[in-house]
Amino acid sequence: MSWTLTAADLPDLARGATLLGTGGGGDPYIGQMLVQRVLGDGSITVLDPDELADDLFVIPTAQMGAPTVMIEKIPAGTEPTLALRTLEKHLGRTADATMPIECGGINSMIPLIVAAETGLPVVDADGMGRAFPELSMETFAVYGVHGSPLALAGERGETVVIDTGDDDRQMEWLARGVTIRLGGVGHIAEYAMSGADVKRTAVPRTISMALALGRAIREAREEHRSPFDAIAQTLSTTLYSEVRELFTGKVTDVERRTTEGFAKGRAMISSLDATSDDALEIAFQNENLVARRGDDVVAIVPDLICVVDIESGEPITTEGLRYGQRVRVLGISTPAMMRTPEALAAFGPSAFGLTEPFIPVEARVYA
Amino acid sequence: MSWTLTAADLPDLARGATLLGTGGGGDPYIGQMLVQRVLGDGSITVLDPDELADDLFVIPTAQMGAPTVMIEKIPAGTEPTLALRTLEKHLGRTADATMPIECGGINSMIPLIVAAETGLPVVDADGMGRAFPELSMETFAVYGVHGSPLALAGERGETVVIDTGDDDRQMEWLARGVTIRLGGVGHIAEYAMSGADVKRTAVPRTISMALALGRAIREAREEHRSPFDAIAQTLSTTLYSEVRELFTGKVTDVERRTTEGFAKGRAMISSLDATSDDALEIAFQNENLVARRGDDVVAIVPDLICVVDIESGEPITTEGLRYGQRVRVLGISTPAMMRTPEALAAFGPSAFGLTEPFIPVEARVYA
Repeated sequence: MSWTLTAADLPDLARGATLLGTGGGGDPYIGQMLVQRVLGDGSITVLDPDELADDLFVIPTAQMGAPTVMIEKIPAGTEPTLALRTLEKHLGRTADATMPIECGGINSMIPLIVAAETGLPVVDADGMGRAFPELSMETFAVYGVHGSPLALAGERGETVVIDTGDDDRQMEWLARGVTIRLGGVGHIAEYAMSGADVKRTAVPRTISMALALGRAIREAREEHRSPFDAIAQTLSTTLYSEVRELFTGKVTDVERRTTEGFAKGRAMISSLDATSDDALEIAFQNENLVARRGDDVVAIVPDLICVVDIESGEPITTEGLRYGQRVRVLGISTPAMMRTPEALAAFGPSAFGLTEPFIPVEARVYA
Repeated sequence: MSWTLTAADLPDLARGATLLGTGGGGDPYIGQMLVQRVLGDGSITVLDPDELADDLFVIPTAQMGAPTVMIEKIPAGTEPTLALRTLEKHLGRTADATMPIECGGINSMIPLIVAAETGLPVVDADGMGRAFPELSMETFAVYGVHGSPLALAGERGETVVIDTGDDDRQMEWLARGVTIRLGGVGHIAEYAMSGADVKRTAVPRTISMALALGRAIREAREEHRSPFDAIAQTLSTTLYSEVRELFTGKVTDVERRTTEGFAKGRAMISSLDATSDDALEIAFQNENLVARRGDDVVAIVPDLICVVDIESGEPITTEGLRYGQRVRVLGISTPAMMRTPEALAAFGPSAFGLTEPFIPVEARVYA
């Protein structure tokens, strides 16, 4: 069913989107401020994907760049709509709705800026079902909708239209090059598709799930209930139904560098028991990719690896990780459409150069 | 007057374009092969710029990239026309003619490939009056025609349309970034303009000048006359009427590196008299920028600094410079429209980070 989103929902949505960002995806709080500024006391219509007309024309919108840069270089806010308008002009067709390509991190917010500015509705679905570092890592592409043509807009009103046919990796490569030359952040419109395509290729209801997650964490905290139980209970009725506690400990080391437009590095979480040498190592490329406990891989991409504050359940990005923080690390299962061989080829372990195979987080046995 | 160009003209045109490349501009002999393949025994109509209808619609075409890469990565040949078609589609208007943006080096040939493929005529004019390393270094831009929107095509059929409004340096910056990610070479269509704009902003009759120069050098050689006298005589009736011999010697050092998509470096030409320490140093960025003899600047951009073989008069690119070559270095004056304060701001010494002022090559006194 369609529903209405207002500014009051944004803090919860930002919290849930940070959790789904699995450490990356860019800071949704900056996006939230941009949405608030444009939305005021207005509202945004959010469309249920199952109810879309097959011939509805949807143009997703997003931001691309390194999260480290996004924090320092807040966008003007007009770029995503310029990207959408540029793609509309290129295609000779106006959009009926926009949609996220990525439900985790700041890209949960960018389509809302476009919706608030243009009055277009937003489809409650996305193409990553979490956050991923590259534009080609989309269920859209896995199931036959390609990203090209892509329109990219810069803060000085520059526009770039990239068409690489069905080669989404080349599209990503060229768009990333332009984004780096724009100073590290670009806004994009891509993966234009029909309502029928959305139903076939998108991960459904991820905006409403992010909102529900953020609300559940907040309410549990306010009511002195366990935020982890609230997360598990919220997800139990979604396509992300399996939640596992991977580790509890404190941050003892964080190593990160921004290179080729990505934030890469690793974090070490050590046992709270000072006499134990038990520890969890998380490797990330913008997002958390793999969690290793000793020699064992305990969770691996595309499943979600989420670091949250041990007390409040507040999700913590890799940028927010600090020495001494006490955290809980959760593993969350992803929908079946994200775990098919085709999907794993696009955004499974091997797509990130990892040699370990994918094993569902719920298939493991923990001590 | 309009004239007709056939495959028989191409070797002379390539030779002349190499001279006008002032050491850079990419190898026109590769372009010549590509034109020959498409042209066969057909012909190309070359339009005199003075005779253009004011409302003629001209889309210039070119290649961009580092000359060092062009030699190793020969283009498929279909990219320039794809770039033209992409820009036509973007603008919603078909071209009546194409034109070089650069008369020196390989970009003398690229519009001929397009003409041979499409049947479009080529305008006998260009926007550099020589070769320059950046897309923003155009008399077109200096006199108010901007490069955007620019269409770029890659060898795998990728297309990119870049629009930076009237900021041609930002256009160059973004297009260069895409070109680097395409492997170092891209083909472009840009600076779309009317016949009236061509008359106002282009350097006229540079294709016919290149052809006449190449023919004069060859005929002088065949008839055992001085190729240098032939060059000077050919240029005497053009806008490039002042020719000076800057130095005669042998190449004793060449230093070059390909960086950020450019071939940068310097060459040292030493006196043929082994007892003399007289020498000429030429610094280049794709093209020769400045020639220094001891502490004296003897020629400087935008005037032409051309290295030619001491016997045959054959022009030598910076890529072709080899230790021990015996060469003559010529300084050639550029047209008045390339020496105005606005023009010098775009492609004079300061545009290349040189601190020396521009002084016309004919204003100097030589020993």
